Amino acid sequence: MGLLDRFRVARKGSASVARERLQIMIARDRSERGRPSYLPKLEKEILEVIRKYVEVDPDAVSVNYEQDAHQEVLELNIVLPESAQRA
Amino acid sequence: MGLLDRFRVARKGSASVARERLQIMIARDRSERGRPSYLPKLEKEILEVIRKYVEVDPDAVSVNYEQDAHQEVLELNIVLPESAQRA
Repeated sequence: MGLLDRFRVARKGSASVARERLQIMIARDRSERGRPSYLPKLEKEILEVIRKYVEVDPDAVSVNYEQDAHQEVLELNIVLPESAQRA
Repeated sequence: MGLLDRFRVARKGSASVARERLQIMIARDRSERGRPSYLPKLEKEILEVIRKYVEVDPDAVSVNYEQDAHQEVLELNIVLPESAQRA
């Protein structure tokens, strides 16, 4: 199964919107317990990088973070404005 | 279906390894044709951000990029060294 198919599986159920979206998912295996997570810090810095390429309205970013004993996953969903895409 | 379940679906079929891994997937809808992609540039900058938190061996990074008429997806898979994790 290719990446595009996998993302379609992952996004199944989202409402279809006409506006362009950017979705970022970061997953880290948790092989050592108790290590502090750096994903929330990464989130902020990755958003700063993305802002170099596209205009990102802070209200248009939704963040989802989940963890269990084995893995932590950070997901950023960004709706890009139609009129002001830079790249 | 939660994020963790979705990533498990996405990763089904990968060999199970003991070493810690970081996986990043970036998907962009392609609502306007012909716009040059900034994902390959993003890839480089996001790797630089990640290097602030964890030691990343360039040989331990595998990159997969796919696109079709509707979407482009960039996937980075990073195997983290056991002994030299910073965060």
